[in-house]
Amino acid sequence: VKFEFIECSEPVKIEGVRLAAANAGIRGRLRDDVVLVELVPGAQTAAVFTQNKFCAAPVIVARENIASKQPKFLVFNSGNANAGTGRQGIANAQKVIHGLADIQGCSSGEIMPFSTGVIGERLNYKKIIAVFPELIQSLAADRWEGAAQAIMTTDLVAKYFSLEIKVGDESYRVSGIAKGSGMIHPNMATMLAFIATDANIHQKHVQLILAECVNRSFNRISVDGDTSTNDACVLTATGKAKSKSQLTPSHPHWSTVVEGISKVFESLAKSIVKDGEGATKFVEIIVESKSEEDSLAIATTVAQSPLVKTALFASDPNWGRILAAIGRAPVATMNIHKVSFWLNDYQIVKNGEPVETYEESQAAAIMEQEEIVVRISLDRGEAKVRLWTCDLSYDYVRINAEYRT
Amino acid sequence: VKFEFIECSEPVKIEGVRLAAANAGIRGRLRDDVVLVELVPGAQTAAVFTQNKFCAAPVIVARENIASKQPKFLVFNSGNANAGTGRQGIANAQKVIHGLADIQGCSSGEIMPFSTGVIGERLNYKKIIAVFPELIQSLAADRWEGAAQAIMTTDLVAKYFSLEIKVGDESYRVSGIAKGSGMIHPNMATMLAFIATDANIHQKHVQLILAECVNRSFNRISVDGDTSTNDACVLTATGKAKSKSQLTPSHPHWSTVVEGISKVFESLAKSIVKDGEGATKFVEIIVESKSEEDSLAIATTVAQSPLVKTALFASDPNWGRILAAIGRAPVATMNIHKVSFWLNDYQIVKNGEPVETYEESQAAAIMEQEEIVVRISLDRGEAKVRLWTCDLSYDYVRINAEYRT
Repeated sequence: VKFEFIECSEPVKIEGVRLAAANAGIRGRLRDDVVLVELVPGAQTAAVFTQNKFCAAPVIVARENIASKQPKFLVFNSGNANAGTGRQGIANAQKVIHGLADIQGCSSGEIMPFSTGVIGERLNYKKIIAVFPELIQSLAADRWEGAAQAIMTTDLVAKYFSLEIKVGDESYRVSGIAKGSGMIHPNMATMLAFIATDANIHQKHVQLILAECVNRSFNRISVDGDTSTNDACVLTATGKAKSKSQLTPSHPHWSTVVEGISKVFESLAKSIVKDGEGATKFVEIIVESKSEEDSLAIATTVAQSPLVKTALFASDPNWGRILAAIGRAPVATMNIHKVSFWLNDYQIVKNGEPVETYEESQAAAIMEQEEIVVRISLDRGEAKVRLWTCDLSYDYVRINAEYRT
Repeated sequence: VKFEFIECSEPVKIEGVRLAAANAGIRGRLRDDVVLVELVPGAQTAAVFTQNKFCAAPVIVARENIASKQPKFLVFNSGNANAGTGRQGIANAQKVIHGLADIQGCSSGEIMPFSTGVIGERLNYKKIIAVFPELIQSLAADRWEGAAQAIMTTDLVAKYFSLEIKVGDESYRVSGIAKGSGMIHPNMATMLAFIATDANIHQKHVQLILAECVNRSFNRISVDGDTSTNDACVLTATGKAKSKSQLTPSHPHWSTVVEGISKVFESLAKSIVKDGEGATKFVEIIVESKSEEDSLAIATTVAQSPLVKTALFASDPNWGRILAAIGRAPVATMNIHKVSFWLNDYQIVKNGEPVETYEESQAAAIMEQEEIVVRISLDRGEAKVRLWTCDLSYDYVRINAEYRT
């Protein structure tokens, strides 16, 4: 089937999704910090959440709610994660959704709450409830950018991405927003994301697409190796596209639409790494080995190494640090005489030995670039993993030593 | 048995061990960078090495040599790790020990080489061989401090510790030196260490004591989570103490002497963390759970968290970051309602809930201190693990972004 992917510079509306943002003054800030998303009846929604055992109160509530009912509303707040807040935190998350349910006349079980911000402080739910009337009034289909701004915490840029998928005679739209900058690491990469498409897809297939897309995007990024308590990613299919026929894995448009949705996930995930706290470099780590598990273990170890990350920050081709990280990766067996690696296309190590013709000036020129690919190959492996990460700079320390104060 | 441990402010001589340091100009520096240690015939020596698969050439050679022969000499150099150097690196490490063997008329298999410094650059073995005559000339029993200085890389202070053990009518001496500041993480904590005692202990028991002591010291420290390619720790028993009777596990002095030796290991390990690159805080993490494996996994996750480490640097009682790190630790099951933790003696979380009477000012006062204990308890566990770590400061980034240049 012939197809086209059209990237849009501004977020495109998804019929069946309305959004609004407002300033509840949660941390006394002057910018919007609460987002309300309304989903059309019949929208098919799936969600995945952090695997942190100390997951936040809203994660517990949202996970429970979607397990029994499809959501009509999503409520996001920034400024306070409502995590590490015990039973009181769960009660406060419940108060938020009850407050909205009372106004809208729906069940609180049809509302999913999401929070992001400082951990360990009580959520002032009254401030959020107080802005619900204003939020409901201003719900509109074109508020994606404002919503992306309102969920930011240490993010420097708002993260949104839209794609139009033209396939055969039909077209579908996908829009997404995300937030995340620090405490970013699989699983789940520490963040909030909401992605919607107007395609008609049954919930069980939405779940399938979500799992696949997350695995190739938000589960493949690392800023600092810290997994948050509040990760959540929601995918909704409203079924409001011109084409009303339901997409299933046997539908001729299926793989194209899934690929298009995946591109939105990937773009949002990369934008999180590019906006990583203090990041000055965007690094793609590609590892090929015999098993995906090993490839991921090696990629993650290299991505998390403070010594590799500070060398990247310094544009110092101190490749011995990459070698040392590969060597300590938790894989059962590794034939070091089959390990090779490259900076971009420049080979540094071949079969465990430094390349004879290596010239530091060439490696240094690559390290100066803002986007760098580190490719690692073990023994002609077929299992390839891509992971995106950034460097570790003074500003990472500054941001995290100053955050809260 | 009555006993006394006497800590000495200056390194004490160990009969049967002579040391010397010299400047070979390996990285063009003006300070000593090569150390020669001579062990008396009959000295019983054991060694443990890094588990990094890309271990350095000297590690490969030293491990092979001690497996078949007891060493007469140890040669250390700083400035160049001779790691990531492939077959040429092994040849160069061999050239170093052959150079010494030729002069001394011993077998090169009786010499253990150790290197520390930059990874991935060729070792100029000729510079080391050139200083052997000077080193042999100046061998003396009182050169422990000079040796500790010569093996430093990014270390700011020389690390040595001595203890006299008086037990019953006998006395034993233990002296040790160590180096390490960055790339510090179990196993082995990235460093070089040489410890000697004049007690008479058979090699198989020296090995036993070494394994036990390393497990409670150098394997329980983390600066940055990076395991080096060059870790090595050597323990020698010269048998030259006044008491000539051999210590075995059934000897009445055994446990006291082992405890004394362990204290030297512990002191050296702590001094590495206190001198951790950019460190401004020394943090002891104590975890009690049902299994030592879980306790260690939690302690390591907290110690490695950049967000916990930057909060420590900022003296910010942002304890939610500790909670988040506990929650993402790789343990199979965790009942979060049984998790409690304290900063020093001040309880922050009790049974998974923030303590009602928590006052930020009290926690902040503790975070201001230079030495902090984070104690974490899971479900009245009996398996206790102690791990020492430090904070993550601007200077960690500066040191590692500048190292080499």
